[in-house]
Amino acid sequence: MNLNEPFWFELVAQQGKARAGILHTPHGDIPTPVFAPVGTQATVKALTPAQLDELDTPLILANTYHLYLRPGDDLIADMGGLHPFMGWERPILTDSGGFQVFSLAKMRKVDDEGVTFKSHIDGSMHRLTPEKSIAIQENLGADIIMAFDECAPPYDREYNEQAMARTHAWAERCLKAKKRPDQALFGIVQGGAFADLREQSARAIAASGFPGHAIGGLSVGESKADMHAMIEVVNAVLPDDKPRYLMGVGMPDDLINGVWRGIDMFDCVLPTRLARHQAAMTPTGRINLMNAVNARDEHPIVEGCQCYTCRHFSRAYLRHLIVAKEMLAATLVSIHNIHTLLDIARGMRQAIIAQCFDQYAREFLMHLAQPQTAGDAIPGLS
Amino acid sequence: MNLNEPFWFELVAQQGKARAGILHTPHGDIPTPVFAPVGTQATVKALTPAQLDELDTPLILANTYHLYLRPGDDLIADMGGLHPFMGWERPILTDSGGFQVFSLAKMRKVDDEGVTFKSHIDGSMHRLTPEKSIAIQENLGADIIMAFDECAPPYDREYNEQAMARTHAWAERCLKAKKRPDQALFGIVQGGAFADLREQSARAIAASGFPGHAIGGLSVGESKADMHAMIEVVNAVLPDDKPRYLMGVGMPDDLINGVWRGIDMFDCVLPTRLARHQAAMTPTGRINLMNAVNARDEHPIVEGCQCYTCRHFSRAYLRHLIVAKEMLAATLVSIHNIHTLLDIARGMRQAIIAQCFDQYAREFLMHLAQPQTAGDAIPGLS
Repeated sequence: MNLNEPFWFELVAQQGKARAGILHTPHGDIPTPVFAPVGTQATVKALTPAQLDELDTPLILANTYHLYLRPGDDLIADMGGLHPFMGWERPILTDSGGFQVFSLAKMRKVDDEGVTFKSHIDGSMHRLTPEKSIAIQENLGADIIMAFDECAPPYDREYNEQAMARTHAWAERCLKAKKRPDQALFGIVQGGAFADLREQSARAIAASGFPGHAIGGLSVGESKADMHAMIEVVNAVLPDDKPRYLMGVGMPDDLINGVWRGIDMFDCVLPTRLARHQAAMTPTGRINLMNAVNARDEHPIVEGCQCYTCRHFSRAYLRHLIVAKEMLAATLVSIHNIHTLLDIARGMRQAIIAQCFDQYAREFLMHLAQPQTAGDAIPGLS
Repeated sequence: MNLNEPFWFELVAQQGKARAGILHTPHGDIPTPVFAPVGTQATVKALTPAQLDELDTPLILANTYHLYLRPGDDLIADMGGLHPFMGWERPILTDSGGFQVFSLAKMRKVDDEGVTFKSHIDGSMHRLTPEKSIAIQENLGADIIMAFDECAPPYDREYNEQAMARTHAWAERCLKAKKRPDQALFGIVQGGAFADLREQSARAIAASGFPGHAIGGLSVGESKADMHAMIEVVNAVLPDDKPRYLMGVGMPDDLINGVWRGIDMFDCVLPTRLARHQAAMTPTGRINLMNAVNARDEHPIVEGCQCYTCRHFSRAYLRHLIVAKEMLAATLVSIHNIHTLLDIARGMRQAIIAQCFDQYAREFLMHLAQPQTAGDAIPGLS
């Protein structure tokens, strides 16, 4: 415990590898396990900060790449940083821009110094380096910022060896570049789907003294079994007293399986992206609200769900909004989907504290209609 | 006063022709003057009912034409009516479908019995009659429903004579067709921009014994001076003890000028439509938030405005959302624009009760940057 630091991680309970904790930040406490909705352009799409607050959202993520390009991190700094700019008073995490450059930019050229790329918005040329990424993230002013890393395709060994070495070198440069004392810089483990590289990367990153650690380069095309295996390898190395963040992951079964293996934090665009494509999350899997079967269905998306949407609106109404192309559809389904993931995180936390996480996880996965996640998901749970 | 009726109008204060009142309905009291935001397809675009409630919206309007075509009034009836369907517990008003058929349908053919038209959605053929309009509105279940009328171009005398005669005949048929005791059916005065026709129409409609009266066929292309003149002619005839509703009108200066002439109720798509086109309402007129001058403007749309948007967000943030094509822009600007009109209605009500409406109106119009409304607007006020 370190009461003088603006940022520290407190372990509250543990069961097996699953942990319940509190991440203390300058903008308040984050109970873990936690799921963070994504607000790419300084807005969680279709939702007001008040609606996110009503959902009791402990943490949101914003994207450095997008905000650097538009409206510009200097503008956001002039406005006092992301928190006042977007009207969100609770904790924020920004990614480093690395993953987005590799997946979104029109053209990119990596060298040991950094990455040169063309904006996906207007084709203009830009350059990101570890130092530049930290400078941008210091302008944005999130509570948790991320080291600049290189993410490689999961099964390309040579590429992963090279990207991992760069990621480690860049991690050190990020630590040196960081100036603000009120932000926590997390290191990122890479290594693709290769257990030996992952272990090597976890040791290197853990040795650098970051206050928190992330696992990058997963959920990018590898199998679920490989994802689980990599999490296990990495978490066996990462120190227990610091938070562990599985980046870009957010299917309900992934949350369960991640926490089972010692993950504390998640983020994903899934709940809001699905919502904009008419898909609602339920305990038995996704449903497409556009389907005609919902046309006269008076029931909410999930009976007994305590979200605003399920307390007030029928599937019939939501389908009407979707068919009539009304914006409110995206808002209401986003509320439900985010609530679903936040509630899974809250449920896991309670279960870990009550020492019944085994049972919680087993029952949750049994009800999911996707059989691929129920079988190989939890080792020792048959 | 009529405490046994589900619907009655109570006059609270009067100054000149301006009135402050309360419209009692089965879903609660509506303080007047009142502005009703429009929820065409059973949703005020981009807003949740909770957000409308937070704005203290006393009344919303929904469109019979749209809801009849999609999702269908029978479906809404099966879901218990519009109130539970759209999750709105306060009063609702539905129009008759007449105006929409005349302005939106792909093709229409009017006869003395009704109107045959092609849906703007899929080109299918439909027929609306006074009886059918009432049946649909009884299925929808709004608190206030409207007589089926024919709206003619304001300066076509022959067309207006014919349309007015039809409107009067149809008004009687609507009264006969109406069955539900928990809805108030309002009659509609037509007559274009012709004072003698307007007077004649007001006498005919007033004689039919409706519990409330509307002025239709204004704000459809006539001059403001003509609009004001027609309101004066009609309101001199309509009885004082029943509410007067100016349909489809909702510019800030129109609200002032309408109340000055004895109007109690307004509705308009303007605040939400403007919001989706980056225009925000201010006491000095509209501003385009997309303009570059707003890029680094830390101020809210209106300094001191008490709406959620102005309390939390800068013009810079709103412009960013607009440039980045984020849905939240429409939501936040809609909140501000609706608040602006609701607040004008509330301000007028307080001013009438305090017997200072003259001064309120004069100061309001003086600050508006649109000179065309400040000069000829209020007779005897300059």
